[in-house]
Amino acid sequence: MSGWVKIAGLGPGASDLVTPQVDAALAEATDVVGYIPYVARVAERPGLTLHPSDNRVEIDRSRHALEMAAEGKRVVVVSSGDPGVFAMAAAVYEAVEAGPEAWRNLDIQVLPGITAMLAAAAAAGAPLGHDFCAINLSDNLKPWSLIEKRLRLAVEGDFAMAFYNPRSKSRPEGFVKTLQILNEAAGDQRPVIFARAVSTPEQAIRVVPLDQATPDMADMRTMVIVGASNTRIIERDGAPIVYTPRSVGV
Amino acid sequence: MSGWVKIAGLGPGASDLVTPQVDAALAEATDVVGYIPYVARVAERPGLTLHPSDNRVEIDRSRHALEMAAEGKRVVVVSSGDPGVFAMAAAVYEAVEAGPEAWRNLDIQVLPGITAMLAAAAAAGAPLGHDFCAINLSDNLKPWSLIEKRLRLAVEGDFAMAFYNPRSKSRPEGFVKTLQILNEAAGDQRPVIFARAVSTPEQAIRVVPLDQATPDMADMRTMVIVGASNTRIIERDGAPIVYTPRSVGV
Repeated sequence: MSGWVKIAGLGPGASDLVTPQVDAALAEATDVVGYIPYVARVAERPGLTLHPSDNRVEIDRSRHALEMAAEGKRVVVVSSGDPGVFAMAAAVYEAVEAGPEAWRNLDIQVLPGITAMLAAAAAAGAPLGHDFCAINLSDNLKPWSLIEKRLRLAVEGDFAMAFYNPRSKSRPEGFVKTLQILNEAAGDQRPVIFARAVSTPEQAIRVVPLDQATPDMADMRTMVIVGASNTRIIERDGAPIVYTPRSVGV
Repeated sequence: MSGWVKIAGLGPGASDLVTPQVDAALAEATDVVGYIPYVARVAERPGLTLHPSDNRVEIDRSRHALEMAAEGKRVVVVSSGDPGVFAMAAAVYEAVEAGPEAWRNLDIQVLPGITAMLAAAAAAGAPLGHDFCAINLSDNLKPWSLIEKRLRLAVEGDFAMAFYNPRSKSRPEGFVKTLQILNEAAGDQRPVIFARAVSTPEQAIRVVPLDQATPDMADMRTMVIVGASNTRIIERDGAPIVYTPRSVGV
């Protein structure tokens, strides 16, 4: 009996954005672990045990998955989006490094998924069509000063920017400061995309110039993308298209 | 007869990394356009016309797709990876903006895919587990000075970095300079991942410290990922795991 852990990305929400590789892993699994709303996306079936757990217990959840795999179980750790982007893959490897030596040689694989930033970009046009940064705006696991430094450097380098976890009830002030910094540093009309619940029935895409962006436009289900200085808007009937051209100053 | 254009990401190579959404679009298409090796990944069938074209004709190809959609055809523009990341989505929207007014109201959608950076990260561990940048190292469409500026700022911000198009026969010197800049600015042992042909039978992953990275380790089929200062390596039997922890200095 040979156990494994597959850390799988379920994509942003729609079932037709889940890769066949992830579906195959779920079909072979004996156990699925993950945050409650992500485990709820996995279909129940005989022989499969679901282990939903609360937010902010990523390391406990990872250890549980590794223990079960060491006992011979086939465990899928589910993440929304891509597991390697602000999600469970790093947590599992933190648990491996801190855990018993034998865990290092377990069969562990990361199965990539469509991360929120790319689904949001696709829904809005192609705002990440040139060099870009992905920044997690939560200061749960890093100091706010580092977030601020990265925001200023990203503007200086004229990267397009994708923001994960822009805002939560417990720390509403971070995104207020983010918008202040961007207005100060980028001080122009560059487009900001608020993409909520992308690929689900509740999908809502809103595009505003930076100086009209307000903190209440985002919540924890919102991905925020800020264009580079050359990002363009194509007006048309319905929602505008936002895209960043491939060429810069040549 | 209502035509459309869907700009679809085929993922990094493996068929089980193509989303069902993209497969469904290909099943409904009358025409497929794209760079020769990507069109070659689409199965031929009666009623489907394949239009492979050479590299560096992205705008001509985009116009062709838009013209066909305006005539009522159902056109899939194929990209490798994700179409919004250094691929065809921005090119199609450039053509829309420069083209006839009527093109703006065509039914155009971007269908996201697994981009090379995320497939490469998954194969190596979780090196993009915290804030990161994606930079296209080709200076075909931007000045080298901008690439250099972005490299230095990315190091200053301590982002992990993913490099697309690191090296080609026509411009071998860019990646030489990139490694020099990184060695100078990051001057340490941070890990560099060379991920070639990820998810295909030719997949090869190589991990070396920055001061041992050499230009010949990359070609145009290679994705290069450079860790942040806190990126870690877990040694084990076989290939090491490279991951960037979720926490920084807290």
